[in-house]
Amino acid sequence: MMSSLRLKADLIKPLMLKAFTSRLLNAVSAQHIVESIVQTSLRGVDSHGINLFPHYCRSVVSGRINHHPQFSFPQTHASAAVLDADHAAGHHAGIVAIEKAMELASHTGVGAVAVRNSSHYGAAAYFALHAAEKGFLAFSFTNADALVKAFGGKAPFFGTNPVCMAAPMASESPFCLDMATSLVSWNKIRNYRTANQEIPHGWAYDADGEFVTNPHEAVSLEPAGGYKGFGLGMMVDILCALLASGPISKDILPMFASAPEAQRRIGHFFMVLSIKHFTEPNTFANLLQNMAERIRNMERLQPQMDVMVPGDPEKAAYQRNLSGGVHVDTEKFAEFLEILPEFSETLC
Amino acid sequence: MMSSLRLKADLIKPLMLKAFTSRLLNAVSAQHIVESIVQTSLRGVDSHGINLFPHYCRSVVSGRINHHPQFSFPQTHASAAVLDADHAAGHHAGIVAIEKAMELASHTGVGAVAVRNSSHYGAAAYFALHAAEKGFLAFSFTNADALVKAFGGKAPFFGTNPVCMAAPMASESPFCLDMATSLVSWNKIRNYRTANQEIPHGWAYDADGEFVTNPHEAVSLEPAGGYKGFGLGMMVDILCALLASGPISKDILPMFASAPEAQRRIGHFFMVLSIKHFTEPNTFANLLQNMAERIRNMERLQPQMDVMVPGDPEKAAYQRNLSGGVHVDTEKFAEFLEILPEFSETLC
Repeated sequence: MMSSLRLKADLIKPLMLKAFTSRLLNAVSAQHIVESIVQTSLRGVDSHGINLFPHYCRSVVSGRINHHPQFSFPQTHASAAVLDADHAAGHHAGIVAIEKAMELASHTGVGAVAVRNSSHYGAAAYFALHAAEKGFLAFSFTNADALVKAFGGKAPFFGTNPVCMAAPMASESPFCLDMATSLVSWNKIRNYRTANQEIPHGWAYDADGEFVTNPHEAVSLEPAGGYKGFGLGMMVDILCALLASGPISKDILPMFASAPEAQRRIGHFFMVLSIKHFTEPNTFANLLQNMAERIRNMERLQPQMDVMVPGDPEKAAYQRNLSGGVHVDTEKFAEFLEILPEFSETLC
Repeated sequence: MMSSLRLKADLIKPLMLKAFTSRLLNAVSAQHIVESIVQTSLRGVDSHGINLFPHYCRSVVSGRINHHPQFSFPQTHASAAVLDADHAAGHHAGIVAIEKAMELASHTGVGAVAVRNSSHYGAAAYFALHAAEKGFLAFSFTNADALVKAFGGKAPFFGTNPVCMAAPMASESPFCLDMATSLVSWNKIRNYRTANQEIPHGWAYDADGEFVTNPHEAVSLEPAGGYKGFGLGMMVDILCALLASGPISKDILPMFASAPEAQRRIGHFFMVLSIKHFTEPNTFANLLQNMAERIRNMERLQPQMDVMVPGDPEKAAYQRNLSGGVHVDTEKFAEFLEILPEFSETLC
């Protein structure tokens, strides 16, 4: 629907790093934002990939993202910790948190870290995959500003608060489920706005809490599975806001429609399980591989449509985009060129 | 749709205990089955409440439920453990497991226990509420026989594998989300079969993987939120089967349509967080109370319909049923009377 261009992933990374560090962001934060958004675009999740690069640049310039965050752990116990992220880039805060959770899990079997005072952390999968690639089973959650309509109400209350889990497989990259608890993402509604196209009935609501097909009138989203998705959104907010002592979704500023310098105080929650504390890790990875293959080999409903496991579309996209380039919306690419004209040389 | 009778909860408990113990089930297992099914019926969840009493009696007689299970912990670490339930009543196994998780969490902040060789554990909420009533935040998961259609396939693969979380609130019983990862429960389809009524389009599939309205042709369920519910079902099976070293949903015998003496080797997974290791517990309970009240006080979509938080329908049912009696299907009550004629004296 949106016109897009393709860029070479390996060529854009150093330019993005340069853009962030020349705006005085510390090199580690810059590294994590870039790694996350490029990985996410490679995985074909364009809503949370490099299309957000100009937004993150603005957040660095405005000071929403702290250039030199001082991370601290106001709580640390054998298996539980709380990280105060000091308004760091969420991508950086999340890696600090999940590495702490991995360290705790290595000793006790489980590590859980709640994060407060963070910012948008991009794709939840970045952190869960980081741990799964090192052999852990990991969960990643974040809250976000209110966009999902309350069950029985007119207005939104919870964010699209994703649930994400990753775990190692024997002969391919980790299993990864990464799902918003809304039926579709808010970014999809934004795309329909840009294209001035009607959205399908059942995706979004207007200010009166009625289904709407005009994307410009949409103010809230349908939860995934009706009241069940709303319940999952509340579960995520309890973990990310209440355990971390931060604001709940309803009190978080919107990502785009708030003052660019305003800090959003987003909360995350990570839980890491050390597989060897439960079972033999190679056996686990083989069993998960076998489970996935049994699903993929089931009789198909439609001959041309694969039976899929969560993460399979992302793995296929990764292979395609590694050679064919990552997608960027044409209008976003104009912003890339304003940031650094050298991006013109990264076009496929 | 089904005709039902109402029974006095306090009068049926001793009769049920007598029925189980006279069938040689140990008193602790009997206690937990009875506590769970009566609590669940009080909460209005009739699919997992006292309607299952005759089934559990048969499972005791047949030996599917081990009369004198020897619980063992093949793995025990600071925050992680595996329980071999020796084919105990799932209600008993689950309590042993979550109490272990609570003990671990008290010391380290988090406790996670995977359970193998268990049987049907009833409502997931029984265990999470048990921990939440003692001040913990708790998750409860179980796998089950394959009933949810694979995404893109024709046949079911995962069970209705529920996700359940409970946490303490300041001035009412704990928050509790307890949801099957299917759109509706299999029990609902069974009720439509009994009543010989068409099921709504979109709930269930026939053997060709097509939506079906004839309940007798239904062989699989639609996942909640489409592929998202299927993904959550896989997440639950990874926790309950792979970490516990037990069979996955696809390999678990059906609850009713298998040999009554066959042991099903169901797996569960419990995770308990000690709130005080993250934040001040009273503050947490107040914040959760406040979150729930803000949702309930939102502007209503329909004047006669409350804005609700997960668990609110169950809390309302509990108050109603405590005075008005718990529901039992009329045909199930005939089985109660065969088991013990004294149940006739428990009618409201």
